[in-house]
Amino acid sequence: MIIDVHGHYTTAPPALGAWRDRQVAALGDPANAPRASELKISDDELRESIETNQLAKMKERGHDLTIFSPRASFMAHHIGDFQTSSTWAAICNELCCRVARMFPEHFVPAAMLPQSPGVDPATCIPELVRCVEQYGNVGINLNPDPSGGHWTSPPLTDKLWYPVYEKMVEYDIPAMIHVSTSCNPAFHTTGAHYLNADTTAFMQCLAGDLFTDFPTLRFLIPHGGGAAPYHWGRFRGLAQEMKKPLLDTHLLSNIFFDTCVYHQPGIDLLTDVIPVKNILFASEMIGAVRGIDPTTGHAYDDTRRYVDATANLSAEERHLVYEGNARRVFPRLDTQLKRKGL
Amino acid sequence: MIIDVHGHYTTAPPALGAWRDRQVAALGDPANAPRASELKISDDELRESIETNQLAKMKERGHDLTIFSPRASFMAHHIGDFQTSSTWAAICNELCCRVARMFPEHFVPAAMLPQSPGVDPATCIPELVRCVEQYGNVGINLNPDPSGGHWTSPPLTDKLWYPVYEKMVEYDIPAMIHVSTSCNPAFHTTGAHYLNADTTAFMQCLAGDLFTDFPTLRFLIPHGGGAAPYHWGRFRGLAQEMKKPLLDTHLLSNIFFDTCVYHQPGIDLLTDVIPVKNILFASEMIGAVRGIDPTTGHAYDDTRRYVDATANLSAEERHLVYEGNARRVFPRLDTQLKRKGL
Repeated sequence: MIIDVHGHYTTAPPALGAWRDRQVAALGDPANAPRASELKISDDELRESIETNQLAKMKERGHDLTIFSPRASFMAHHIGDFQTSSTWAAICNELCCRVARMFPEHFVPAAMLPQSPGVDPATCIPELVRCVEQYGNVGINLNPDPSGGHWTSPPLTDKLWYPVYEKMVEYDIPAMIHVSTSCNPAFHTTGAHYLNADTTAFMQCLAGDLFTDFPTLRFLIPHGGGAAPYHWGRFRGLAQEMKKPLLDTHLLSNIFFDTCVYHQPGIDLLTDVIPVKNILFASEMIGAVRGIDPTTGHAYDDTRRYVDATANLSAEERHLVYEGNARRVFPRLDTQLKRKGL
Repeated sequence: MIIDVHGHYTTAPPALGAWRDRQVAALGDPANAPRASELKISDDELRESIETNQLAKMKERGHDLTIFSPRASFMAHHIGDFQTSSTWAAICNELCCRVARMFPEHFVPAAMLPQSPGVDPATCIPELVRCVEQYGNVGINLNPDPSGGHWTSPPLTDKLWYPVYEKMVEYDIPAMIHVSTSCNPAFHTTGAHYLNADTTAFMQCLAGDLFTDFPTLRFLIPHGGGAAPYHWGRFRGLAQEMKKPLLDTHLLSNIFFDTCVYHQPGIDLLTDVIPVKNILFASEMIGAVRGIDPTTGHAYDDTRRYVDATANLSAEERHLVYEGNARRVFPRLDTQLKRKGL
């Protein structure tokens, strides 16, 4: 079984973007804000947006299942206030839930949170509870920088975030640490901000002792961990200077990396440097990089080819990357699959 | 000949830090600000700080020459105003110049600039001119984020930076793109901010067309290019989507990476993915990561071992990484060496 743990609904019907545009246009003018109920997307529209896109590519590439969350760049937590994000997150999460119910063999939902800069992350808990209990979400996406590139939040090790972690531990769900659109002109969204956030989150965890307080808390760092695996020696050395335990002990029971690295040498390094138990297959397909690599003739984001081709993994290890690790890191996914006899 | 293009004076005598502390303490109280002339560091102190540190390690590791600039984390351009940075840069650059004159076979200076957040980079030109013309500096360090982790400057492709580039082109000197201490609690200085800045600078150049305006401008992106080589497929794909030329054409006549990557797999990836002509040997020794790697028994920052050991380089290519490329990217270094018959 091949599970892609990092998929976003990047192909939602245009009505979704149009509704968001109206919401943004009405900021500061609440009387003209659209109601959630004004968004109408039919089952047929939903089905077509998936069947002709993600599902078509999953079949082509032989992926069985995708953990599916709202489009990362559209979360845009920096826009408006908590109420803005709250309405928007509820809409986006409901859409992913509908997709998962329509294609139960192929999609399982993960939730975005209604974060807002300067607002206590504890305010996200009701949406998190709703998504887990009513929608069957198996994970969440947590944005370490809801300001959109101004980095005004304290590090992920700060107690400010603890209410979210307590709920994650209670539900036994992991968080993918994923930023959204950058509104800082210094940072290109997918070429700098995403990768920087991955590196930053990893280093925040390295510098802190979060997993002493939450031994079962789990973070998935996307995009192959940003710069972390490439600079693994640097991070091992920094941990040593900071008198932290070895990274294996200090972080690798709690931090996992996905395989969204879009060329063979990158996947080779990832699978060489990071223990197999910490690597989860993912492609973020129809995402940041949608083209065909002229050097291979295949899609950049067809990461299965790199994972299949790397000499660093045995058949058994490849199975862990494709399925076993995902079922361990996302226990609610495992439960759902077992209930189906899988 | 082995040239390390990335060395900082991290071991300056304590009087330097004490002077800086007085300068910082007197911010907003100019009457109590120390004068530059109050800093006294004798030749003996200077000699000892180098002979027992950088030079000792250079001899141990077989490096011949280091391009030597003021300590990066001490630049701290976010402190005070232009006058603060101006006095501080002048002092630090003078010290590096004294080191280079004391050990002319082993050190060649590169300059820090008196940058200050929100201040026109053109104000840095007099110090740049002084360092090149009077001190024989062969390059500069340019900070893309003088705010220290708040990223309030426009991208490096913005015309705001052009006066500095015009001077660089006139002198035919490259800039190492190097940030300083982060004062943003989200970013650990050497574990996140440095690497993020490398990735950010690379992506700023990718998204722009700076080298169309300045075909001979050269940037050295340190720390192995941040996340760029590990995600080379992502960047190739992003360039393609943005209708830019292939990276070879678009960036690789102007952008170079150093080898400050502190483990063998990282250097293997760098030398696999990036053309040899774009890789310059460097260690940033006695810098961010000073410990001994327990898995090898050698210093993390002893990067020569990785460059020597990688199977990706022929003897001729290794010579380019160690010497040839540095002489090409830093033509004023080449001129100085030739003048000595080297």
